[in-house]
Amino acid sequence: MLRDVIRAGETYAIAPGIDRAAVRALWMRAPLETHVAEIDGAAAGTYYIKTNQQGGGAHVCNCGYVVDTRARGRGVARAMCLHSQARARALGYLAMQFNFVVETNRPAIALWESLGFATVGRLPRAFRHPHEGLVDARVMYKWLAD
Amino acid sequence: MLRDVIRAGETYAIAPGIDRAAVRALWMRAPLETHVAEIDGAAAGTYYIKTNQQGGGAHVCNCGYVVDTRARGRGVARAMCLHSQARARALGYLAMQFNFVVETNRPAIALWESLGFATVGRLPRAFRHPHEGLVDARVMYKWLAD
Repeated sequence: MLRDVIRAGETYAIAPGIDRAAVRALWMRAPLETHVAEIDGAAAGTYYIKTNQQGGGAHVCNCGYVVDTRARGRGVARAMCLHSQARARALGYLAMQFNFVVETNRPAIALWESLGFATVGRLPRAFRHPHEGLVDARVMYKWLAD
Repeated sequence: MLRDVIRAGETYAIAPGIDRAAVRALWMRAPLETHVAEIDGAAAGTYYIKTNQQGGGAHVCNCGYVVDTRARGRGVARAMCLHSQARARALGYLAMQFNFVVETNRPAIALWESLGFATVGRLPRAFRHPHEGLVDARVMYKWLAD
């Protein structure tokens, strides 16, 4: 499911030609936790949670989510984001930040907004979309601790 | 000079207790280039340049700058930033992004603004300053290619 999303190159700033070991490092070794969502025992999505910045920034976590193309429209991303917020609080994080939400990824933006994330930054032409050309990316953020 | 800045913990989101090897990895191995500024043959500052995001985000670079405490107020940061912008253009980058400029680092913000960087994001309470408590961090950005 990661391969499909990475090869499409439309939503994540990951090199489409990245090899299996590098994907594993990115999604499973670097993060603090990696989770898999299941529907009827079959993998439907995955997300990671990691510390976004070290030192004075270490109270803010970052997550990445991928839903299997065959499981779209079934609330998997919402369920994973809610789960990740609970995990973040349990791990002691005070906030969650998405560093790079591609502007054309409208469903994701709408979902994150509905779950309490605000757009706190806009990176002009920071993403080269394979079909749309240079588009903006958003920084989205939610304070978890209040 | 890196040790002084990292131990102070006031401007970079780097763990103050980071060891020498990790600093080397962060400042010299992960980046594409690392430069040293000299005044009369003595090191006065250093900066790195690296790709900020992979894949569709790989046309945007990121830099980090540190000025030796004994060389403050002599234009070293300005000179390094101008040099880094020239290097960025030469390397083919279209934009430069600073991911995490701590709000209390007023001299840096004023300098980046004077050099054409705009604040494109504001991360609420994203940095725990050792003396000021939780403060905002800015995302700053400059398009280089126009």
